[in-house]
Amino acid sequence: MKKLINSPEDVVREELEGIQLAHGDRLRVSFDPFYIVRKDAPVKGKVGLLSGGGSGHEPMHGGFVGAGMLDAACPGHVFTSPTPDQMFEAGKAINGGAGVLQIVKNYTGDVMNFDLAAEMLHEEGIDVATVLTDDDVAVKDSLYTAGRRGVGLTVLMEKLLGAAAQKGMPLSEMKALGDQIRASGRSMGMALTPCTVPHLGKPSFELGENEMEVGIGIHGEPGRHRVPVASADEITEMLMEPILSDLPFHRGEQIILFVNGMGGTPLIELYIVYRKAAQIAEKHGLKISRNLIGSYITSLEMAGASITALRADDALLALWDAPVNTPALRWGV
Amino acid sequence: MKKLINSPEDVVREELEGIQLAHGDRLRVSFDPFYIVRKDAPVKGKVGLLSGGGSGHEPMHGGFVGAGMLDAACPGHVFTSPTPDQMFEAGKAINGGAGVLQIVKNYTGDVMNFDLAAEMLHEEGIDVATVLTDDDVAVKDSLYTAGRRGVGLTVLMEKLLGAAAQKGMPLSEMKALGDQIRASGRSMGMALTPCTVPHLGKPSFELGENEMEVGIGIHGEPGRHRVPVASADEITEMLMEPILSDLPFHRGEQIILFVNGMGGTPLIELYIVYRKAAQIAEKHGLKISRNLIGSYITSLEMAGASITALRADDALLALWDAPVNTPALRWGV
Repeated sequence: MKKLINSPEDVVREELEGIQLAHGDRLRVSFDPFYIVRKDAPVKGKVGLLSGGGSGHEPMHGGFVGAGMLDAACPGHVFTSPTPDQMFEAGKAINGGAGVLQIVKNYTGDVMNFDLAAEMLHEEGIDVATVLTDDDVAVKDSLYTAGRRGVGLTVLMEKLLGAAAQKGMPLSEMKALGDQIRASGRSMGMALTPCTVPHLGKPSFELGENEMEVGIGIHGEPGRHRVPVASADEITEMLMEPILSDLPFHRGEQIILFVNGMGGTPLIELYIVYRKAAQIAEKHGLKISRNLIGSYITSLEMAGASITALRADDALLALWDAPVNTPALRWGV
Repeated sequence: MKKLINSPEDVVREELEGIQLAHGDRLRVSFDPFYIVRKDAPVKGKVGLLSGGGSGHEPMHGGFVGAGMLDAACPGHVFTSPTPDQMFEAGKAINGGAGVLQIVKNYTGDVMNFDLAAEMLHEEGIDVATVLTDDDVAVKDSLYTAGRRGVGLTVLMEKLLGAAAQKGMPLSEMKALGDQIRASGRSMGMALTPCTVPHLGKPSFELGENEMEVGIGIHGEPGRHRVPVASADEITEMLMEPILSDLPFHRGEQIILFVNGMGGTPLIELYIVYRKAAQIAEKHGLKISRNLIGSYITSLEMAGASITALRADDALLALWDAPVNTPALRWGV
């Protein structure tokens, strides 16, 4: 295992120390329990937006904390759900009197712990609502999931709901908007190589010299098929066709198209995937109104890519364009 | 070789097609010869900022084209210098009457071809000046270089000079500012794994299971030593000490600190490196006034990192903070 780390048990704490040192002007890191929060939290009268999940998917979620996106993020250990006390403390820290909205990727541990945290926050007199993401069309019921897995749509969801919260949208409308976004986005991913969880010290699965896993999860969970490596165009088709036919997306619709790297795939390859994805979208009569290309929801150093398409009306596009000021996504400020 | 590509000879053209499809609202791609240019070029009365180099280092340079940074970038084939005709055509396309400044990383092929392009532009009656980057303290005279190699400082140089050009600074002052930045920044990098140039099909060098290359170049050129893999803290010391002692940096100075990923190293590890680098900088009495953390000058899928420190006065910090609107760096707009 070759990694730029000191010891497996210190990875998350030391990463958080790095984040505190790098972004302490805008963010505050709590070390007991672990969470990252906007330095100006709680923002009075604004819904507090909370997310979290296992580490190893950086910049998600901690890199998305800041004005116009998340108020706080709770990192678990690598590929491990954060605990209810992290979410409870973070939730209290961001409650500005307008309640807390939790964005939860659909993994059994995450869902259970965010549910417990919601109850605990409720008992403190804080209004809490929860939005799930379960956008991965690859498989139903997976290694860590009942139902579909939450993947790339989470990034778009956090940006869009973050903008809505910043504009002062009340909690009940935020929840409805989140459910609309959940219903309007689909994703699928693939891997060329596995990744190694630091405290395990060896790859979480094996792929042959000429094999790839299509439909893989962000923790290396099995996908739809393990097949010989194909061309970028063929791979992009294997991802785009299930995504577009699942919702389904209709001719004439506008979409936000997100081509995501799994961590070990360079940007030059992501643009080659985007090229084909855009051609396929056009063939289906879809208009790509906005796009995002880069490694935003990763699986450590896994090589591979995922694609997310989100149906977007003008109201959603206005939320997308709204200012955001986080370590990983920033514009307008 | 596992890559998200179609065929090795189409990598650069298809990447450029992806960039055109993704960013055609702001950029224009020329396919004969290859260059990427601001859609609103030439900007009248503004110095045109031109850079370029081999592909495989994305987002550098094409991802840095836009308002507040480069006016145009010329991509060569992977790890291969672009040709003078690319630079000549791009230079003409961005000449708004105030001349063209070339930012050139110190590699023999790049320097020679940019020199030829400067002569050709001169003959067209266009004022041209050139700034070199040669910030890599690892080695003097390397595989493709006489003198030191240009690496991470190039990213900071392009941002800072881009802001100066946007503010209307004339060519002669831009050249002097570029030389000042060149003299004020130092870098060093390392690799845990090699990378594979698509048309070669196999790794450009070999590293044992427990080996790393300290002082490596961005094309995998040999560094200072090949040593057993060490901890992130030890590696960061191996990079920071030569950087800080070379200039040297003095107690009480302000710096911009840039921790860069080589392409295959995930962000979680870069923050662990940043943590130690910031601690070392503090121990040396340096104030980190700004930072940049991410994979901005890469070597395809190589795992590893580099560090750049740039001495920065308030004038440089103001240029750093100025608005920038490119695919890879964006704020203030």
